Amino acid sequence: MKKISLLGATGSIGLQTIDILEQHADQFQLVAFSSGRNMEATRNILRKLTPQLVSVMTADDAHALQQEFPNVAFTYGNDGLVEVATHPETTVLVNAVLGSVGLASTLAAIRMGKTIAIANKETLVTAGHLVMSEAKKYNAPILPVDSEHSALFQSMNGENIKRIERLILTASGGSFRDKTRAELEGVTVKDALNHPNWSMGAKITIDSATMMNKGLEVIEAHVLFDMPYDNIDVLLHRESIIHSMVEYSDTSVMAQLGSPDMRVPIQYALSYPDRLPIANAQRLNLAQIGQLHFKEVDFDRYRALKLAYDAGRAGGTVLTAMNAANEAAVALFLDEKITFLQIEECIERVMDAHNNILLPDLETILAVDSETRKIVQSMVK
Amino acid sequence: MKKISLLGATGSIGLQTIDILEQHADQFQLVAFSSGRNMEATRNILRKLTPQLVSVMTADDAHALQQEFPNVAFTYGNDGLVEVATHPETTVLVNAVLGSVGLASTLAAIRMGKTIAIANKETLVTAGHLVMSEAKKYNAPILPVDSEHSALFQSMNGENIKRIERLILTASGGSFRDKTRAELEGVTVKDALNHPNWSMGAKITIDSATMMNKGLEVIEAHVLFDMPYDNIDVLLHRESIIHSMVEYSDTSVMAQLGSPDMRVPIQYALSYPDRLPIANAQRLNLAQIGQLHFKEVDFDRYRALKLAYDAGRAGGTVLTAMNAANEAAVALFLDEKITFLQIEECIERVMDAHNNILLPDLETILAVDSETRKIVQSMVK
Repeated sequence: MKKISLLGATGSIGLQTIDILEQHADQFQLVAFSSGRNMEATRNILRKLTPQLVSVMTADDAHALQQEFPNVAFTYGNDGLVEVATHPETTVLVNAVLGSVGLASTLAAIRMGKTIAIANKETLVTAGHLVMSEAKKYNAPILPVDSEHSALFQSMNGENIKRIERLILTASGGSFRDKTRAELEGVTVKDALNHPNWSMGAKITIDSATMMNKGLEVIEAHVLFDMPYDNIDVLLHRESIIHSMVEYSDTSVMAQLGSPDMRVPIQYALSYPDRLPIANAQRLNLAQIGQLHFKEVDFDRYRALKLAYDAGRAGGTVLTAMNAANEAAVALFLDEKITFLQIEECIERVMDAHNNILLPDLETILAVDSETRKIVQSMVK
Repeated sequence: MKKISLLGATGSIGLQTIDILEQHADQFQLVAFSSGRNMEATRNILRKLTPQLVSVMTADDAHALQQEFPNVAFTYGNDGLVEVATHPETTVLVNAVLGSVGLASTLAAIRMGKTIAIANKETLVTAGHLVMSEAKKYNAPILPVDSEHSALFQSMNGENIKRIERLILTASGGSFRDKTRAELEGVTVKDALNHPNWSMGAKITIDSATMMNKGLEVIEAHVLFDMPYDNIDVLLHRESIIHSMVEYSDTSVMAQLGSPDMRVPIQYALSYPDRLPIANAQRLNLAQIGQLHFKEVDFDRYRALKLAYDAGRAGGTVLTAMNAANEAAVALFLDEKITFLQIEECIERVMDAHNNILLPDLETILAVDSETRKIVQSMVK
């Protein structure tokens, strides 16, 4: 029985994690979870599973829930996140929160040697050097939950990782993949949210359209698998069937394929090194799909991807600045305050003006993050 | 340093194995090899590598070579094959002979607990039950050399094999894949030998056109990986880039991809579980290839594949009868004694008339093999 703590239980990844825990109640036990402001979804989980500890955003919500569920302990805020992440019974922490909010609690869990199933890109992108050095020091395995990194991880199963020549991240190209750069001028929020393959949250769907999502994944792959940027490629693959690939020194390429279903990589991080069935998961039928397409990525067309490689190669706080600028700019685009192409412009301007600090500590990272968001806000005033 | 014996050194697989041994002389040492009648190719190997023992077809050839290479021991015939296979210093036997000739020597090597890298389909198809039960008893690993089975094997790396749901063997469809059954009536030997993806020997190229090759591979996969026939699929994939796939219980599909190059699976069997570089091997460039195609296989169109599944499900000597009938019929086709479609007819008539014996011993297998060849010969008289 694996004992699980889950940060961000009511988000998209969180709810799918809950599904898996329910389905395999004989294998996994939810010990503790955190949620945000969605009290209805939080109650719903509490009716189905019986964690010992739950952390919510505010003291008021914690008190209200305590009345309704007297057998569960409730806590709140950033300290609550750390309590959930470091629960003494927990062996696996699933970090499924968005943004930098899970960073401190994840580092705390790593220092207790817990296994981290990481669905939070920001943690690895902005604080990859801290996370990986602590993980090494405290012998805490970091398992990817993202479908691409899970595919890479699965394609390394049983291999001598010294023989890896290249990581190949596949990219659908997002909702505007058939548009030229000129055609991107007038696109709307509604257009952008119409992703061809995956049903995801708004922020990540926009990141997919700009390919900043893929840029963050390139950085994440660099951090997780200790691979130089020159050996990480992005390949356009519109069907999103090959989730990613690893090329070895003998020219063999190992790949993980499947129908798009986030439960597969989420569950793999939980069941690893074993696999388990998934209720109602769609088996891959390549004959029915008929064709898979591949195309080189054009860095002029997808400028955000180029910016991410640049930030990755530079390292340091520019990674935080890039990520925060992207988050702030995407929020402005979703609020219809800036155009789609201005997202990249914001990021580029922030990166150009940034005074880079290498190997930053957590405080510096959080300071750059908050400072950058203000800078982007000031751009549209 | 791995010490290698090689049966069939001057055939296509044998020569490529020699290439690999030469390239990685720091990793592999050729202890002994066998060759057939090609004395020039045999001499060529002896000039490059320094085995202790060589077996050829005839006593005369052995004596002639002994004069030229006084520091090497020479032997000949079936006993010579056994001597090569069971050389006391050898740890890995590569069986790259064609047909049933390597069967007895391979079993002898298995009984000494040697690792067997098996490129010989017939051994597994006709005597799979003997080979695998002896391999289990004497703890002798059987590693596939065939590109499809190597791909399956690589896709099982580090996995819990109990979670395998399905093996998916890809098939190019052979030289006549774009022809209907009616269009196969008038095809010539020359047409048939023009394989689209792989450069191989004549017999295997014809087997690829009839898809008996894929049928033999299905049986081989059943034997090697102990998988029921209902869980082994064949998928048409004209580009031969995905070499085969394994589907798991979580719907994940693991695949091995690469440019068609037999040195990759040959070397993998030698270097396993490690990998090594291969001189001048072509790296996979999916963006350049652009598209991969997949299509369900039509068992009416590829009747030989259907016959192979039937024989596999039946088990016993009908496997030997089918294989021998195919070998004899292909030889007759190459001699222009029968038409292309008559290959399948021969096999079907032999199988229909066959009195099946389950779990045959080696003598029975060899008797059915030789009897069947006579039956097929008599069909054209």
